[in-house]
Amino acid sequence: MTFVIMSRSFTNYLEESQIDMLPSLAEPIAYTLASGGKRIRPRLVLAAYGAYASDTEVVFALARAIEYFHNFSLIHDDIMDDAPLRRGRPSAYGKYGADRAILSGDAMLVYCYRILEEYQDRACYGQLISGFSQMAIGVCEGQQMDMEFEEREIIQRHEYITMISKKTADLLSAALVLGARLASAPEDQLLHWHRMGQLLGVAFQMEDDWLDYYSDHPALGKQKAGDVIQKKKSILYITACEKLDSAERSRFVELYHADLDTKLRLSQVEEIFENLSIREAVRADIEGYKAEITETMKVLSQFANIVALQELADYLAGRKY
Amino acid sequence: MTFVIMSRSFTNYLEESQIDMLPSLAEPIAYTLASGGKRIRPRLVLAAYGAYASDTEVVFALARAIEYFHNFSLIHDDIMDDAPLRRGRPSAYGKYGADRAILSGDAMLVYCYRILEEYQDRACYGQLISGFSQMAIGVCEGQQMDMEFEEREIIQRHEYITMISKKTADLLSAALVLGARLASAPEDQLLHWHRMGQLLGVAFQMEDDWLDYYSDHPALGKQKAGDVIQKKKSILYITACEKLDSAERSRFVELYHADLDTKLRLSQVEEIFENLSIREAVRADIEGYKAEITETMKVLSQFANIVALQELADYLAGRKY
Repeated sequence: MTFVIMSRSFTNYLEESQIDMLPSLAEPIAYTLASGGKRIRPRLVLAAYGAYASDTEVVFALARAIEYFHNFSLIHDDIMDDAPLRRGRPSAYGKYGADRAILSGDAMLVYCYRILEEYQDRACYGQLISGFSQMAIGVCEGQQMDMEFEEREIIQRHEYITMISKKTADLLSAALVLGARLASAPEDQLLHWHRMGQLLGVAFQMEDDWLDYYSDHPALGKQKAGDVIQKKKSILYITACEKLDSAERSRFVELYHADLDTKLRLSQVEEIFENLSIREAVRADIEGYKAEITETMKVLSQFANIVALQELADYLAGRKY
Repeated sequence: MTFVIMSRSFTNYLEESQIDMLPSLAEPIAYTLASGGKRIRPRLVLAAYGAYASDTEVVFALARAIEYFHNFSLIHDDIMDDAPLRRGRPSAYGKYGADRAILSGDAMLVYCYRILEEYQDRACYGQLISGFSQMAIGVCEGQQMDMEFEEREIIQRHEYITMISKKTADLLSAALVLGARLASAPEDQLLHWHRMGQLLGVAFQMEDDWLDYYSDHPALGKQKAGDVIQKKKSILYITACEKLDSAERSRFVELYHADLDTKLRLSQVEEIFENLSIREAVRADIEGYKAEITETMKVLSQFANIVALQELADYLAGRKY
C-alpha cells in the first residue's frame, strides 16, 4: 500500500520535472522517458529509502537520477543494437537519428549528476557520487562484455554472471544501496542491499532467458525463442554447453550458429534442450536464486521495513510470461 | 619557465595514470589520449591554479579530468562527423568502430567524475562537480547547435558566438575557473577567469576560421579553404552575409551551397570575399577580441600571477598558420 502511494506521487514528480537544456537535446530525453516502462529502478530507490525513513520526497531526486541513467543506457544501447524500435514505437535512435541520440544520451548522463546536486549539502554526497559513477562504469563494461560475447562461441557461466551483474544488477544494487545510504542506513547493512540488487538482477535476467524460450504467453510480445533465432548466448545455451561432452558440445555450438533454415535449426536445438532437461535445470537455478532472495529478505527485515521491497520482488518474480 | 616545468611534470603524471576499467574499454581511451594534442586545456588548469598557489601537484587530477573530458568529446564527435581519421591516424571510431567508440566515450565521461573524487574531502568539491557538469552539458549543446547549423543557410553572428561559446569556450572557462577555485581564489575573481576562457575560445575559433582560408603555411596540414569546400558556416561566411543586402545575400548563399564545380565555386566565393574585404573585417574582429584578452589579462594581473597564462595566450595568439 505504502508502495503504491509513494510510487504514484513519484510518477507525478517525474512527469513534472523540467529538463533544463537546449530544447533539441531535451526532446529526445523527454521522449525516451515518456515511453514508460515499469519504473522498477526508481521504485527500488524508494523501497530502500522507505525501509528506514518516511519523508520519501527527499529521495525523489535520487530515484529520478537512477531512472535517467537507465534511460540514457537505453538510448545508447539502441544505437549499438541498431534498434529503431523500442516498446513498439520508434526508439530515440529511430526517431532522431544516431547523432542526436548519441548527444542527447551524453547530455542525459551528465544531467544525472546535475540532479544529484540536490544532495550537495549532505554528508553522504561524495559517497552518492562515487557509488553512482562506479555503477555507471560497471554498466558500460557489462554492455561491452555483452557485445564481445556475440563474437565468441563458448561463454563460461561465470562470465555470463559477471556480464549480467555489471550490465543489469549493478544498477539495481546502486538503486538500493544509494537509497538506503540517503536514509542514513548503517554502513554494515549496505552490503545486504547490494547483495539483494545482485540477486534480483541475475534472477531477473535468467528468468527473461527462460521465458523467452518456454513461455507462450501472448503478453510478452516477443518472438518465441527469439534468443535461439538470434543465436544469443542465453543461460539455456550456456547450460546446454556445460552438460555436453567436448565432441557433443562442438556439434551443438556449430548447429546453434549454423546458417541453416531457421525452422530446421530450431527443431534440432529443441531436441537437444529436451534431451538435456534444460527447462528443469535452468528453472532449478532460478529457484536457487529466489531462495537466496528470500534469505536476504529475512536478513534485511531484521533491521528495516521491507514491505515495499517484498512487493517489488514478488512482482519481478511473478512474471509468468 | 614555471609553465614549462609544471607542464613536463604533468605530462609524466598523465602518461603514468592508470585507467581502472575493462581493458577493451580502457584501450580506446588510452589510444585517444596518446594521440597527443597540445594539452592546452590542462595547461590552462595549471596556469589558473599556479596563479594563486605553488603546490601544483594538487591540481593534476583536475587537469587530467579536463583533458579526459576533451578527449571524450573528440571520440564522440568523430562518430557524429563520420571521421575515421584524427591527426593523421585512425580515430577511435576508425580503429575500434562506432559501438566501442560510443561505449568507451561514455565510460570516459563518467571516469572524469571518478578522477575528481580526489577532491571529495575539500569544501569546494560540490562546486567543482557542479561547474564540471554545467560545462559538460554546454559542450553537448554546442555540438548539437553546430550540427543544426549545417542544415540551415543563414546563421546570425550571435548564434555563431553562442555555439562557439558552448562548444569550445565553456571548456576553456571551466579549466580556468575550476583551477582557480581549487586554489581558493576569491569568489569575485572567478568571473574574470571565466571571461578569459570565453575570449580565448572565441578568438581561437575565429582565428581558426581565418587561417583556414587566408593561411598558406604548410604546417597547417589542412586543405586550403576547407571550410568553403565543405560549405561550413565560418565567421567569414557569416561576415559576408552581414555585409550584403538582401538580394545579394540570397545569391551568395545560393552560390556557397551550389553543387557547382568546386574550382568555379571557390573562385566566385573568393571574388565576393575580396570585394567585401572579408580578410580585413574578420582580422579586425579577431584583433578586437585580442585587445579584450589583453584588458582581462591586466585585470587578472592585479591579484594573481599570470605568467603561465600569458605564455599560453601568446602561444594561442601566435599561430601564424
